[in-house]
This record gives sequence, structure tokens and C-alpha cells, in this order.
Amino acid sequence: MRRDRILLAHGGGGSLTRELIEKLFLARLENPLLKPLDDSAVLVMGGKAHAFTTDSYVVRPYIFPGGDIGKLAVCGTINDLAVMGARPLWMSLSFILEEGLLLADLQRIIESIGATAAEAGVQIVTGDTKVVERGKCEGLYINTAGLGEIVAPNRLGAANVKAGDAVIINGPIGEHGVAVMSQREGIAFQTNVVSDCAPLWPLVKAILDTGAEIHAMRDPTRGGVAAAVCDIARASNVGIRLREDALPVSREVRGACDLLGFDPLTIANEGKVLVFCRTTDAAKVFAAMRENPLGKHACVIGEVCEQPPGTVTLRTTIGGERIIDMPTGEDLPRIC
Amino acid sequence: MRRDRILLAHGGGGSLTRELIEKLFLARLENPLLKPLDDSAVLVMGGKAHAFTTDSYVVRPYIFPGGDIGKLAVCGTINDLAVMGARPLWMSLSFILEEGLLLADLQRIIESIGATAAEAGVQIVTGDTKVVERGKCEGLYINTAGLGEIVAPNRLGAANVKAGDAVIINGPIGEHGVAVMSQREGIAFQTNVVSDCAPLWPLVKAILDTGAEIHAMRDPTRGGVAAAVCDIARASNVGIRLREDALPVSREVRGACDLLGFDPLTIANEGKVLVFCRTTDAAKVFAAMRENPLGKHACVIGEVCEQPPGTVTLRTTIGGERIIDMPTGEDLPRIC
Repeated sequence: MRRDRILLAHGGGGSLTRELIEKLFLARLENPLLKPLDDSAVLVMGGKAHAFTTDSYVVRPYIFPGGDIGKLAVCGTINDLAVMGARPLWMSLSFILEEGLLLADLQRIIESIGATAAEAGVQIVTGDTKVVERGKCEGLYINTAGLGEIVAPNRLGAANVKAGDAVIINGPIGEHGVAVMSQREGIAFQTNVVSDCAPLWPLVKAILDTGAEIHAMRDPTRGGVAAAVCDIARASNVGIRLREDALPVSREVRGACDLLGFDPLTIANEGKVLVFCRTTDAAKVFAAMRENPLGKHACVIGEVCEQPPGTVTLRTTIGGERIIDMPTGEDLPRIC
Repeated sequence: MRRDRILLAHGGGGSLTRELIEKLFLARLENPLLKPLDDSAVLVMGGKAHAFTTDSYVVRPYIFPGGDIGKLAVCGTINDLAVMGARPLWMSLSFILEEGLLLADLQRIIESIGATAAEAGVQIVTGDTKVVERGKCEGLYINTAGLGEIVAPNRLGAANVKAGDAVIINGPIGEHGVAVMSQREGIAFQTNVVSDCAPLWPLVKAILDTGAEIHAMRDPTRGGVAAAVCDIARASNVGIRLREDALPVSREVRGACDLLGFDPLTIANEGKVLVFCRTTDAAKVFAAMRENPLGKHACVIGEVCEQPPGTVTLRTTIGGERIIDMPTGEDLPRIC
């Protein structure tokens, strides 16, 4: 593997992304606000804690079953704020457009952005548009930044998970990645899977409103549930034990993963949230999730232990145990 | 001209960019915070007014005389906050990288980002990295969003300029655009011009500290001084009269513009600010600018009148008068 050049896997959200961030970026840009590397930075403005996040969206194709790059951009931003316990308020919206892009496609995407933002009560307040020559991007890329006001009573973050926490997810995994991949030239296949792309704030608010002691939330996007839990196990220096028989995976996603040789644990989601909460509060969190349309298939999928620190293990359906590694990020480029 | 597809000029910062924003974007995303279309949105957080801005950077080549895409991204963000009277505090940083990009180039650009941010006292607090396949971008594109706290005593904005205001600029125009163009394949030419790319907050702070009544500031980037003053004339419904003999243009920039058939008024700057202030305060603003390293070649270049509303005129050196139109944006794609 060439190590002097950028590889696709550097953008996969797995171990190579992590290496790039730690070795190249953090070394030169480090400060106490950046260092936690959570989904959003926490900034105090006018005496109040706010969450601030950014993401670029390069998904290919830019219209896919269950959504498009515009809906994805709004949901992704909202979800990165929500998992920090922040009520999403405002977004920036920046386009890199390819010369020759059909205005009708752009219009459809903007309508999708407008509808998703309106539904979620978020305002687009500033933006930018650049155009590059034909062949210098692929239709369009979008960048957003988001701002929200933190309403969670205690600070949520990957480093705050504690032994004894329960791990809960709001529904079946892998749908976004499979829906996007099913449209790709070369590997197109028949499937009924649609992206789970959804703004999670209403669900997160319902969870926070229970008054449960939440330690961290994470939306398992690139790298899937595997990357998210590996990240948290490392940041909190805890062991995380998942139960394979408890992991919600639809028959269609399972079939597609078998066909393509993927593990559903490493496939991206865009409408899922992992919740780490005190075990004694798990029942009320679970109940609140089940009552919400975005959480009606919620499952308790594991627990947090002291040992082995920094490690994720999966108890398999046949009673074995395997270690879940941080994916390298090579599997599924450009699913978001 | 094909009107059903995106053209390069849609990204040029001129009339076609404006048309795209008004017809396609504003129609579907409009809200009171977005509508002013200033360099930053003004958001009240915790009872305090903050400025929030975003820009994508697609400059080609990404290393040019006087800077690189990283320095440009930090300066551009800082300047969009500064011209709203905001002290720049925090930035997001999002990369779209091309598979195969040399890590050494990326490292150089990150070092440049780190150095410029440190010099300006701004922290990079959150980020994102995506990688696209070889040929799907050109080396790298950067997006930033910026946050600053507004310290100006009154609201600055394109719509707040008044008849009787003086128009001051902090130095010679057109250097960034010419420096970048001089490196382009096909039109490379010998020049000593380097980009004026610089963080303007120290200069803006010095201007605000005079206590002068400032009505608007604008950094004349894409579309140059022409696009900035046309925008302001329209937003404030005033006439702006510029004097050609007062416009600072270096011999080298003038020569390059003659060679390429460009008007220096439409060429991008990345370290210039146009200040619109009450005429009776112009002398103290001018003096404060001249004392600052970034303003030592400051000039009063024009004045604001009631008539003709929405129009910019240039009194030429030979005593004639010509109307300055909003540039279409076709001249110089990808200079930022």
C-alpha cells in the first residue's frame, strides 16, 4: 500500500481516517476544543453551551432510494448536533457544483434540503456556491456546518461512557449503506432496502426528556456501528460487549451483505443512534424510544464493562466471542 | 447560452451567482436570518450577537504566489467575520481529498492552516474528511465555517450604507486574482505579483476602535471591487461614485490586466476591505488604516450619493463617467 498518498480508505471513517486525523491534523491544529473529536465541538457563547459541527457530503449516486444528498446533508448535520444533546437551530450550506449539472437536479436537491430543514425546525442562515469545470467533481458536493444549543443536563461525549452502561440502538442497522451501494454501477442489485436517513432530534429529545442519565450518544454513520463502538471503547477506556442475537438486521440487509461480503456492523446508517446510559435507566430510555416513530424497533444490544479496556467484543449466536476491530474504511467509499 | 445547466459563471460571484441564489436557493430556503445575504449571518446566542459564515475553496492551482488553499481558507473565513464587525473565534475545517493526493502536499497545507489560524488567534474546533476517487476532484477542496462575536456597536451590512458615506479601501486591488491566474496552464506569464491573502481582523479592529460610525464593510473577493460595490449600491438603494484616479492599482496588476483583457475592478482580492463610513469620520478611519501594516496604502476611492439609486458610476481619469455593472462572473473561475 502506498503510504505517501491519500487512499480512498482515508475517507472511510475507520482506522485510516483516524490515523490521518491524529498524525497529520491534530499534530498541527490541536487545541482543547478540537481534541475530544466528538461529533460536534462544544463552545460557550454568551454563557451558554452550544454544539458546532461540520460535514462534507460526496455520496454517489446523489439521488438514492430513501433520499438524496440534500436530505442526507441536513439529517447528518442535525444528527451530529443531536447526539451531543443539542437542539439543532441553524445551518450553513455550501455547494461545489460541476459545470453542466442539470439545474433541475439542483432544484430537486434544494427542495429536499428545504423540506427536511423545515420539518426539523432548522434554518439555513448562510451559504456559498462554487463551480468547478466539467469532470472536476461528480455533479455536486455539499458541505454543511450546524449550530445547536445544548440542552442535555450533563456533557455527552465518547469519553464519558462508564462500566455498567447499557448500549441501546433505535432500530435495524446497515440500511443506508446497502441502499446506496445497490445503485452503484458495477454492483447494482435488486433490493427493497431504502436509506434510513432521518433527522434524529425528536427521538433524542424524547430520550433526554426521560431524565435518564445518558453518558454518550453516537450516530453510527461511516464505518457503521463497529467504528462507533470501537471509538467509544477507546475514548472511554472501557470494554463494550455486544450480543449478535440482539443486533437488529433486516433480512434484506443481511442478504445484501452476504452477497457483497460485508459485515452489517461496518455499514453506514443515517437515521440510527447508539445510546449509552446507566443500566438502571435503560428500561425507561428503551420505553421512550419504542414510543417514538424513529425508535419503534429499538433494541438493547450490549453492555459496557471495565474489561478489557478499549476493546469491543461480540458474543456470537453460537456462543463464541470475537473481537470487533475498528474497520479500516476500505469497504464502502462515498456512502455519505 | 444553455440555461438548463450550471455554468462556470454561476460560481463567479457576479450576476449569475446572484441569479442562482435568488431564483433557486432563496425561493426555497428563505428566512429572515438568511435574507440579508451578507458575508455572515447574525445569530443571537446566549443573548450575544455572533457572526456565522461559510465558504468552500476550490482555487487552482492550490499553491500559488503568496499563499495556498489552506491560508486562503483561514483568511477568507476570518475576513467574512471581520467585515461584519465580529472578532473571529472558531472555525470548522472540512476536506474533500482526491485519492492519490500527496500526503506531503496535504501536510504543507495543514501547516499553513495551523500557522495562519494561530497568528490570527482563531481555533479550528471541528472537522471532517472525505476522499473521492482519482479524477473526482482536483487535489483537494476545503470548506470552512467560522464563528465570531460581534463587537461593532452598530449592525454592519450591505443594506446599511447611507448617502454621504465615504468609500475607503486599504490598498491596491487585483493582486490575488492576478497572482493565481499567472500560474494557470495555458496563460502562465511572468509577474512579481503575489496574492494579498491576509487575515484582516487586526485592521478591522483598529478601524472599529476609532469609534467612527461605520455602516458597512466588505472584502471584495470574487467579482472584485465591482461586484462588492454593485451589491451594496443595490442593497442600500444608493448611488456609489468611484474615482478612477483614486483607485490603487499596481503597475504589475495593470500590465497583467491589459495583457489578459481584464478590468482590475473585477479581479478578486483576499486581503482588502472596503469601508463605508460617515464622511465626517473618514479622516480618522483613514488615519487609523494608514497606521496599520495592512492599511498603509489605504485610499479614499469614492462616495455614496442618493442618485442614481442602485447604481455605481466611475469618474474616469479623462473626466468621463461610466456605469460599473455587476460582472457576470465569467472572467476568472476558481480563484478562491
